[in-house]
Amino acid sequence: MKIGFVGLGTMGAPMAGNLVAAGFDVTVHNRTRQREEGFEKRASSPAEVASDKDLVVMMVSDTPDVEEVLFGPHGVVHGAPPGALIVDMSTISADATKDFGARLAEHDIAMIDAPVSGGSEGAEKGTLTIMVGGDEADVERARPVLDVLGGKVTHIGPLGSGQLTKAVNQVIISGYFEGVAEGLVLAMKSGLDPYKVVEALSAGMARSAVLEMRAKNMIEQTYPLGFKLALHLKDLKIALESGIDLPVARMVKETEERLVAEHGDEDMSALAIEVRRKAGL
Amino acid sequence: MKIGFVGLGTMGAPMAGNLVAAGFDVTVHNRTRQREEGFEKRASSPAEVASDKDLVVMMVSDTPDVEEVLFGPHGVVHGAPPGALIVDMSTISADATKDFGARLAEHDIAMIDAPVSGGSEGAEKGTLTIMVGGDEADVERARPVLDVLGGKVTHIGPLGSGQLTKAVNQVIISGYFEGVAEGLVLAMKSGLDPYKVVEALSAGMARSAVLEMRAKNMIEQTYPLGFKLALHLKDLKIALESGIDLPVARMVKETEERLVAEHGDEDMSALAIEVRRKAGL
Repeated sequence: MKIGFVGLGTMGAPMAGNLVAAGFDVTVHNRTRQREEGFEKRASSPAEVASDKDLVVMMVSDTPDVEEVLFGPHGVVHGAPPGALIVDMSTISADATKDFGARLAEHDIAMIDAPVSGGSEGAEKGTLTIMVGGDEADVERARPVLDVLGGKVTHIGPLGSGQLTKAVNQVIISGYFEGVAEGLVLAMKSGLDPYKVVEALSAGMARSAVLEMRAKNMIEQTYPLGFKLALHLKDLKIALESGIDLPVARMVKETEERLVAEHGDEDMSALAIEVRRKAGL
Repeated sequence: MKIGFVGLGTMGAPMAGNLVAAGFDVTVHNRTRQREEGFEKRASSPAEVASDKDLVVMMVSDTPDVEEVLFGPHGVVHGAPPGALIVDMSTISADATKDFGARLAEHDIAMIDAPVSGGSEGAEKGTLTIMVGGDEADVERARPVLDVLGGKVTHIGPLGSGQLTKAVNQVIISGYFEGVAEGLVLAMKSGLDPYKVVEALSAGMARSAVLEMRAKNMIEQTYPLGFKLALHLKDLKIALESGIDLPVARMVKETEERLVAEHGDEDMSALAIEVRRKAGL
């Protein structure tokens, strides 16, 4: 299968690397072209990367980026052959996704949305959680590619369902990160050894991926990536556009808005900074 | 080892049963004595249950209950022989625990605090998470008993450390339950199949014991025990007495205060009731 891959950021670069390692014929493109170094086949634009390809994977930052890559002057739509399949793994608005899908269909190009969870570790190890929306037949065409990138690939429903599920994920983990941050601050303020506390709680109801993988950041006040706080903030804003009253998601959004200027490029466990600060820790 | 066991509630009854099944010589006592049925050896008071015992396990509801069981007119202190060890597995205030320990020491009775997490399932299966505070030698004396009751037993620090760790646990899971409730409400309002969403997210950053074990309650609006909402509310109040600013813990406390009259005896996943209500679900 001939694959085009657009977007070689913290997530996209190791994902494209895993596809090459799995034996796919991969051509890459990135806006900042230096990031293409290390890949054998490179293209100078989304249109070029899509030409002659069965499938184009996109992993970029936000809704306007996806629109530009697809429909811009040198966009995928100007290069992809009829019958091609776009697999958008970026996290963007579900409504925009449905609109893009309809516009691509006019060119006889299919699209599925397949946003991911699992951070840069998951991207590197090929263990991402992938939430997929689209027509069954399109999802099946993409499955050999998705199976290389993800440890768990779930087809949720029609186009846009992947993005909606990702929004749900971002809301849920808001509560987890805030809960773990508050618990650890209470532990440290109470004079407990926070490492022992994490060890003790890791098998009970407080068991979670966040406690296992991010408590150490919060204790040691270093927040390496992981998953950028600025991107989580962007995703939460999408989720809150629903207009539904989601209090912990809103609270975390507001905290992240205060932290983003200074800590936006750090892991979202940097949320603990504000909880520590308020507790005088 | 001869063991006295006080408190045969949702948690205590299966725990005492597990000790009997493991071959310990167990005598039980419960305030409502009917609950002693099914146990061979029963005592009419805490003093009687403690007489001649090496170790007395307590699993009651709150700080005043522990005080009454230990120091009331028919309290443990009037029956336990010098050198006995009290293992308090209730969840109560850490400060009160230290006070009780000091008062028991005057009678040459030792005490450790060993509150648990894991709910009624954990109590039944003997897989509780047990957070222990006390002197090393006392913890070692109790370990054969704790190992039967728990899947993970962690000695955190001096007397009171178990209770402080439990408070940390209750703060952390506040964020988890609220996050999962908000995420599921967003999923259902967005028209997604919530079971597929849970399945998809269970391997990523949203992985947690709460998502695995309690999402179903929230989707189906039935909240069997589990762990009583009223007891979690009691525990959160203890945690918030610290005076530390813990916003999601405070938010969940306030929600639970609104729910407790009607839903206090249900599992704390009933927290979802308010999130659903606000979303018009």
